[in-house]
Amino acid sequence: MSGDCDFGLMGLAVMGENLALNVESRGYKVAVYNRTTSKVDDLIEGRAKGKNFVGTHTVEEFVKSVKRPRKLMMLVKAGPAVDAIIDQLIPLCDPGDIIIDGGNTLYSDTERRTKLVEEAGLLYVGCGVSGGEEGALKGPSMMPGGSKEAWPHIKEMFQAVSAKVGPNNDIPCCEWVGPRGAGHYVKMVHNGIEYGDMQLICEAYQLLREVGGLNNEELYDVFAEWNEGELQSYLIEITRDIFSAKDDQGGDAFLVDKILDVAGAKGTGKWMSQLALDLGVPSTLVTTAVFARGLSAQKEARVRASKTLNGPSESMNPEMRAAAMKLVGDRADFVESVRHALYASKIVSYAQGFVQLQAASAEHDWGLDYGNAALLWRGGCIIRAQFLDRIKDAFEADSNLENLLLHPFFKKAIEDAQAAWRTVVASAAILGIPVPAFSTALNYYDGYRLERLPANLLQAQRDYFGAHTYQRVDKDGWFHSEWLDLRKQPK
Amino acid sequence: MSGDCDFGLMGLAVMGENLALNVESRGYKVAVYNRTTSKVDDLIEGRAKGKNFVGTHTVEEFVKSVKRPRKLMMLVKAGPAVDAIIDQLIPLCDPGDIIIDGGNTLYSDTERRTKLVEEAGLLYVGCGVSGGEEGALKGPSMMPGGSKEAWPHIKEMFQAVSAKVGPNNDIPCCEWVGPRGAGHYVKMVHNGIEYGDMQLICEAYQLLREVGGLNNEELYDVFAEWNEGELQSYLIEITRDIFSAKDDQGGDAFLVDKILDVAGAKGTGKWMSQLALDLGVPSTLVTTAVFARGLSAQKEARVRASKTLNGPSESMNPEMRAAAMKLVGDRADFVESVRHALYASKIVSYAQGFVQLQAASAEHDWGLDYGNAALLWRGGCIIRAQFLDRIKDAFEADSNLENLLLHPFFKKAIEDAQAAWRTVVASAAILGIPVPAFSTALNYYDGYRLERLPANLLQAQRDYFGAHTYQRVDKDGWFHSEWLDLRKQPK
Repeated sequence: MSGDCDFGLMGLAVMGENLALNVESRGYKVAVYNRTTSKVDDLIEGRAKGKNFVGTHTVEEFVKSVKRPRKLMMLVKAGPAVDAIIDQLIPLCDPGDIIIDGGNTLYSDTERRTKLVEEAGLLYVGCGVSGGEEGALKGPSMMPGGSKEAWPHIKEMFQAVSAKVGPNNDIPCCEWVGPRGAGHYVKMVHNGIEYGDMQLICEAYQLLREVGGLNNEELYDVFAEWNEGELQSYLIEITRDIFSAKDDQGGDAFLVDKILDVAGAKGTGKWMSQLALDLGVPSTLVTTAVFARGLSAQKEARVRASKTLNGPSESMNPEMRAAAMKLVGDRADFVESVRHALYASKIVSYAQGFVQLQAASAEHDWGLDYGNAALLWRGGCIIRAQFLDRIKDAFEADSNLENLLLHPFFKKAIEDAQAAWRTVVASAAILGIPVPAFSTALNYYDGYRLERLPANLLQAQRDYFGAHTYQRVDKDGWFHSEWLDLRKQPK
Repeated sequence: MSGDCDFGLMGLAVMGENLALNVESRGYKVAVYNRTTSKVDDLIEGRAKGKNFVGTHTVEEFVKSVKRPRKLMMLVKAGPAVDAIIDQLIPLCDPGDIIIDGGNTLYSDTERRTKLVEEAGLLYVGCGVSGGEEGALKGPSMMPGGSKEAWPHIKEMFQAVSAKVGPNNDIPCCEWVGPRGAGHYVKMVHNGIEYGDMQLICEAYQLLREVGGLNNEELYDVFAEWNEGELQSYLIEITRDIFSAKDDQGGDAFLVDKILDVAGAKGTGKWMSQLALDLGVPSTLVTTAVFARGLSAQKEARVRASKTLNGPSESMNPEMRAAAMKLVGDRADFVESVRHALYASKIVSYAQGFVQLQAASAEHDWGLDYGNAALLWRGGCIIRAQFLDRIKDAFEADSNLENLLLHPFFKKAIEDAQAAWRTVVASAAILGIPVPAFSTALNYYDGYRLERLPANLLQAQRDYFGAHTYQRVDKDGWFHSEWLDLRKQPK
């Protein structure tokens, strides 16, 4: 038995509720279910009143109310809850029905579940959804992967629901990503890049505030201006707005100054870092951003340390300090230098993200289309930015591009920025301002463009103490040396 | 039935063979076994000839040849092989027998196996062993953890076998670490710190070679001198020796210049990084070192990039470049500055390692003694150094010391080094030399000593786009703001 709903959505927290309203608004009839069933009634009597919804109070009723092949989407907390729902749905579904996970699920869980659900004769889609509450309601970025046969059934609806970009605002930010966990992996990299972007903005803020002495009104103006140029993006835009918000608890202070400097995290940045370590690819920006959040969370320890540990003194490094202070002395020049440092570091961050996607795609045989990934992030999601058009162009021109930094557009962008980028990183070191993400981006750039790194010494050490063997520059094969016999006797 | 051997050792690769010889040399009778039994015969007929060994050809024979309670140690490849051997040993053993894993095992496997073996009525020890081939033979650092009741049975033997330190060379680098996987965790942190030390030495090498123009003979002299001071350590010593070794394939070149700059890794640094991410503690040095090895391994990509991507030009950043070149111009001053940068970064690296140990100990209820851990690393192992006496002293003076950087000795050491450290990091940024570990250490120091980080903005962003809520500086609780309503309308 099946009903006449076009779509079913389980999990009516704010993301789920908003996505259900979004789907309905595109002309679809939507069945909804939530474990705490009062939320179903609240929605039906509230925001869904008079709309084309069917509220259901059991999973069975929920499944039965949807047309075959059913499109049943979960928006619940990632983890065991998803497995529990799949176990409930499988016996209630008919062959060819489609179970969709729209949560922030670890890709390896989606790999496993795709297999499980397909073996039960159904189809499975792990779909990354980004855009927060507002995106879910008005048009998120959607990154579906899993059972390829599901795509023709959900394509029209998902593309209708998703954000649109392009000159005519008609290119959907929703395309098929790849098999099994590919969609959730791309979403994880999106989130990791978001971590990097946010940390880079924070470092710019720290420099402008602590070194440049800019107040919130001036910061508003800076970010407003930055949002008109190369850095134009949702995160720069909301940062601008944040600097204009007054404390909503009363008083005339700015709200941002009332917020404790302790960052939270939900785990996708950590996953991306851990998986980069597994792949052996140096995704240093996201990892640095995750660690920076960790250090921020040690607030009490930092307060204690701040009373004991000294930074640089005024008399330290006189020439370098003079050069740094000269930079800071011209405010417009300083602001522009920080903008360059942010932009160059951001390019490195995205380059690292795509290198990780390439490595993961090769490992899992996903056949990812990188220009496509850039398009999906072009609108709707948190990292949406004009910048992503350039990335899309780069991969469309060369689908095998091994690193964004090698593409002429980004190569030139870095060249234009690098003098300022280097000055900012150097000045921060001299003045005692932490800029871990600006620094790690520069170090990656300088390491990546060097034919000769000092790892020959490291291989010598490993062979010396552990007989781990090494390769040579002039012969193939692996070699071990008897270092104790080769060394000069110490004087 | 049991034999008269005091100890049994399974797995006769180089570490196992050398450790067996070490145990026997302390007056114990040793049974040995290896899956490929010809290795048993080779040992018995070779290096063990005329010594107090019993070669065995089946696991049953091996177990039977050892006195009860048996001490049976595996030195095999970490992973499923260890589980397979445990499954073989359990039915052959008697209550109270002790199974010991001396490999580089992930601590969580040891947690699981301790429970499994104890449930079978036996005792289990996961023992980190460091020191390479030579250490295994002459005296390694040993980090045993697991079933506490096993310790009195193995203490005398293990302490006899281990490295010794102290003015009278009689303090063993082997003490009980803690329950379950504690020993293997401490060994993993040892290895992660080793990654950091090696990367720091490589960055010093890169600077001295590329910027200072030092040749291998001069590098030998620098490291020989450094090994006489604060940096005195095994790794500095072997680095010195490496710079004196001539190519063993003929010719008059130095061997280090013939080695390919592609670093390998075995995985413990990666584990430590991934577990730091899980704990939320910023162990940035080990992670940076792991990523640096990853970047070195992209040799062909780097060679391609080196032909495209530009570094800083001579005309860039004139004042800062002049200051950097002035530093480099005085070679003795430059070498001394690099030494300071290395030493300060090394202190941060160890501080981070101990913070991670503290977090892990709290999470797993291990009750680790940090002064003890420092003692275990004082001799025998790869990171052995005089420096560890200072760490031991610091934790003995204050077992709750929350960060080594706060201890007066290390605080002063950083203060003495920081002007040079900052100059080196700044100069490297200006000159285009990658120093990721020097940089991340400085950024950690500058972040840790700041009461106010920019994470307030990050929390504002998260609340703006995702309603993640934030804490305030002036009130307890979690808050959410309607940012869209609070913002100023853009001009």
